[in-house]
Amino acid sequence: MTPHHSPKNLANVDTPAVVLDLDRLESNIGRMAAVAREAGVALRPHAKSHKLPQVARLQLAAGATGLTVAKLGEAEVFVEAGVGDILVAYPIWGESKWHRLCELRRRAQITTCADSAEVVDGLSRAATAHGVEIPILVEVDTGFERCGVAGPREAVALARRITESPGTAFAGVLSFAGQSYGAQPGPGLEAVAASDARRLLGAAEAIRECGITVPVVSAGGTPTARQVARISGITEVRPGAYAFSDRDQAALGWGTLADCALTVVTTVVSRPTPERAVIDAGTKAFSSDQSIQDAAFGAIIDHPELTPLRLTEEHGILHVPAGMRLDIGTRLRVIPNHGCGTLNMHDNVTVVRDEDVIEEWTVAARAKMR
Amino acid sequence: MTPHHSPKNLANVDTPAVVLDLDRLESNIGRMAAVAREAGVALRPHAKSHKLPQVARLQLAAGATGLTVAKLGEAEVFVEAGVGDILVAYPIWGESKWHRLCELRRRAQITTCADSAEVVDGLSRAATAHGVEIPILVEVDTGFERCGVAGPREAVALARRITESPGTAFAGVLSFAGQSYGAQPGPGLEAVAASDARRLLGAAEAIRECGITVPVVSAGGTPTARQVARISGITEVRPGAYAFSDRDQAALGWGTLADCALTVVTTVVSRPTPERAVIDAGTKAFSSDQSIQDAAFGAIIDHPELTPLRLTEEHGILHVPAGMRLDIGTRLRVIPNHGCGTLNMHDNVTVVRDEDVIEEWTVAARAKMR
Repeated sequence: MTPHHSPKNLANVDTPAVVLDLDRLESNIGRMAAVAREAGVALRPHAKSHKLPQVARLQLAAGATGLTVAKLGEAEVFVEAGVGDILVAYPIWGESKWHRLCELRRRAQITTCADSAEVVDGLSRAATAHGVEIPILVEVDTGFERCGVAGPREAVALARRITESPGTAFAGVLSFAGQSYGAQPGPGLEAVAASDARRLLGAAEAIRECGITVPVVSAGGTPTARQVARISGITEVRPGAYAFSDRDQAALGWGTLADCALTVVTTVVSRPTPERAVIDAGTKAFSSDQSIQDAAFGAIIDHPELTPLRLTEEHGILHVPAGMRLDIGTRLRVIPNHGCGTLNMHDNVTVVRDEDVIEEWTVAARAKMR
Repeated sequence: MTPHHSPKNLANVDTPAVVLDLDRLESNIGRMAAVAREAGVALRPHAKSHKLPQVARLQLAAGATGLTVAKLGEAEVFVEAGVGDILVAYPIWGESKWHRLCELRRRAQITTCADSAEVVDGLSRAATAHGVEIPILVEVDTGFERCGVAGPREAVALARRITESPGTAFAGVLSFAGQSYGAQPGPGLEAVAASDARRLLGAAEAIRECGITVPVVSAGGTPTARQVARISGITEVRPGAYAFSDRDQAALGWGTLADCALTVVTTVVSRPTPERAVIDAGTKAFSSDQSIQDAAFGAIIDHPELTPLRLTEEHGILHVPAGMRLDIGTRLRVIPNHGCGTLNMHDNVTVVRDEDVIEEWTVAARAKMR
């Protein structure tokens, strides 16, 4: 008996484990870099998806102009890792956070966004007190109905306020067309990209008409990045999930399941009936993020005949077709519905090329709440 | 400007933060201890819910006989914290894990469970090689259709195998009636508890008829713990979520919303329209665990008029009724649907009595994958 295997090969990694395939990752990073390059727009990947300085470095080396994050805690991790240009794409509120943002601003090119006078005023007071200047993008709601000012009139008012406030500089406009996750691939996504760009560019145009320069017109999201990047007037795209890709991104047309770089390696631990198998990965390994497609919790590589039925915290339940042999101890590799959510459940990720384990990375920007 | 507040009061804790109310926690722990004591059964709380040695100590002090966990990594944390009696209620598979289980067995009273000959044989080989004896419960499926042998015949065969194998000792039978989460409170839960107990006791009785002693008859789950504890023949209950409770447990009748000890403190960061507010907590703060009741992501304390509509990773979107003032910067406290899932998203929990911050605890057994 050899209880401790040398983890040189993926087959020797204990399960469940989240695994990142470097070849696929690099290919995805290269593909999106080409999309931006060919469209002539800047690429500012959202790092909340990967949470890994190592992936950020690959993105920057492939031509990304900087990163996007949602949390100051994420920005702090990436600045510490040497990233010099970060957009904190979130309405930052409160003395403690304004203070941290200003401290970060001394160390790197930090931009943020706002959709309210309250946030602009807070940032202005803090920036003035700290003696820094904070560039701010105005977030415009282009149909997702989350954050963002409603239209050109509100965008103009906020851009003016940023321009006129001490310590803040108007940097442009930003949107996130999250409604793309409910759209059909192809024409549906084209339509979302078109309406996203129309509303975002409408706000930008209204601001320009007031004599205010709009340097950045930034649109978000992997599903519509290719479409929106080609629309005249868009200057930047902020896709995040593209680097790993996942079952839902493949369904929306970002490559195929074979391009997904992030998988969960699991083991069959129970075969209570001929038609049921249980694997050692549940919501704590996959997250409970639902698919945009169906009730399945993922796609099982090499075994389309197995149906991933449901998850509990530590169990994944599969339907096994009649007559299929699937012994306890069988290892299965699963493409998750949502790669960002899955990696967020793990402190570490096993990095491979094919079946060779290269190293283990700490998910450095994971669970940064604030 | 005082950028760093002294966090003595909850009002000064930066958001989002997960908060544990000690008074409510202790009350919930006491209530379930009384349930078990009055029914004359052992209480072995499932620690995958709280993941905190501090909570385990309170449970043991209130009369729990030991803990339940799902992962060896959790067992290792709790043994390290001084807990001497732990059931690893999961089919443990593979040389590496069998080795760790045997190592733990040297340090504490460790029991596990199995629903297959394969797992029993692996445990037997490892225990023999390590010179330890592993007590094993046979898991019986009582209707949840996850793990567990199908009925008395299979239970008898596995109990015999455990009894006859070197290094393993038959310790009893175990079930988890997870179908309770789909039952109506009151009569519905009574019915689940009755059928759970009938099937579990049927397996126990069949094993006894073969001349094998069945020391433990253990049933799981907070929703049915009170009902099943009173059924003759049940010797142990393994509720987990009861310690925190949550919106779903309250709906199933474990106290009320006022008994929920775990909350997420958030701040309104955006008011894009009069009827929409956005808070700074999304699936990364709450988890994406769906409610058994509806599409809401939680219950907002003191504000039943606010409807929690949906979450994205870092945003919670609320419907605000006409005419309600809800300024940016307003702090809201939210009871999550599923306390276990919520705490699992956080590295630390802020511990309070009323509004006073007592300390911050590391969620020591969080994200133990293996």
